Amino acid sequence: MSNNKRFAVVLAGCGVYDGAEIQETVSTLLAIDKTGSTYQCFAPDINQFHVINHLTGEEMSEKRNVLVESARICRGDIKKMADFKPDNFDAIVFPGGFGVAKNLCTFAIDGPDCLVNPVVEKAIQKSSKAGLPIGALCISPSLIVSVLGKSKITIGTDEATARAIESLGATHQNTSGSEIVVDEAHKIVSSPCYMHETSVSVVAQGAENVINALYEMM
Amino acid sequence: MSNNKRFAVVLAGCGVYDGAEIQETVSTLLAIDKTGSTYQCFAPDINQFHVINHLTGEEMSEKRNVLVESARICRGDIKKMADFKPDNFDAIVFPGGFGVAKNLCTFAIDGPDCLVNPVVEKAIQKSSKAGLPIGALCISPSLIVSVLGKSKITIGTDEATARAIESLGATHQNTSGSEIVVDEAHKIVSSPCYMHETSVSVVAQGAENVINALYEMM
Repeated sequence: MSNNKRFAVVLAGCGVYDGAEIQETVSTLLAIDKTGSTYQCFAPDINQFHVINHLTGEEMSEKRNVLVESARICRGDIKKMADFKPDNFDAIVFPGGFGVAKNLCTFAIDGPDCLVNPVVEKAIQKSSKAGLPIGALCISPSLIVSVLGKSKITIGTDEATARAIESLGATHQNTSGSEIVVDEAHKIVSSPCYMHETSVSVVAQGAENVINALYEMM
Repeated sequence: MSNNKRFAVVLAGCGVYDGAEIQETVSTLLAIDKTGSTYQCFAPDINQFHVINHLTGEEMSEKRNVLVESARICRGDIKKMADFKPDNFDAIVFPGGFGVAKNLCTFAIDGPDCLVNPVVEKAIQKSSKAGLPIGALCISPSLIVSVLGKSKITIGTDEATARAIESLGATHQNTSGSEIVVDEAHKIVSSPCYMHETSVSVVAQGAENVINALYEMM
């Protein structure tokens, strides 16, 4: 497949417990690059909610910036979320990781009452208005649904998370492995990725399935 | 291919400019997992040489630990380099990134006069003695050659780096893209990856080529 489409990829830091899930992010970039399209990474220029020592799981007494840490994954080639313009892209994708639910919105802390970072909220609203298909991996559907409400998504099979998302007006479908859920009406494609205990090749296939489904909607 | 082999993957932090190159690392883990084998990540429990802001390229006035930061890439499932035992593995792989040449050894600063971290040096010596095939991506051959001397490797086409490595007793072969160099005698497989300005799918293919060549040597 050679597509020459332009993907915006939104990052939430660098590391599963306080940022973007790294393996999901690289899998997303790989799926895009493999199909002959290009990507531009974005992240909000804000402090992380907190910093987690990924070896011990404990909080560290540090401050880190979401944009600066996200830059690690994409070798410095990243732009401020505020500079995102839907006109320049054919699709927008959100890899997962706790950072999505701690930095981009507060779903991990506040559940369905969460606040969404205003710059990220605007990017999602504008993308939806412009008719861009939206990809959402892992926990990212919680962010998308917090902004757009009504939609059909998956976060895997976690009962509590599914109910919290449904209380925001969405319909949740259980999925396993690399399966995706396609919401044709709202142009949203989601896949559970590391919402399940799984391996990187299953995640990479899930990301690939999401990217391929986004092409169908452009 | 289904192989059920055990790979040790050695990380040097988390981010191309001061740690492990993230895309090369995930590509390595993916190539291993895809072929039905397992991996265990390792990193030395030492401070990074320095911390680079990956957005600006400037040094930050922070201290970060190589083991703790490496844990971000592999979701916390990592062990201390000192606990590595060659008997438990069928191969050992070193993804690239400046961290290899700043944290695992000082090749980026001192060139062929570099010092190698003693724990990492021991792991490479033991692996070689035990007959484990060694994979080396990107700049990692500089580390391997600093320990083992004589060998046939590639770091792409960079003249100065190639000469510095040759002065340590190695033979360098120019490569591009996803090509590999196989040293049958010393059981070392190398691929240039991001030593070239290239894209993540080329890097992923290079990592896959290295992993597949390692299987042939087990």
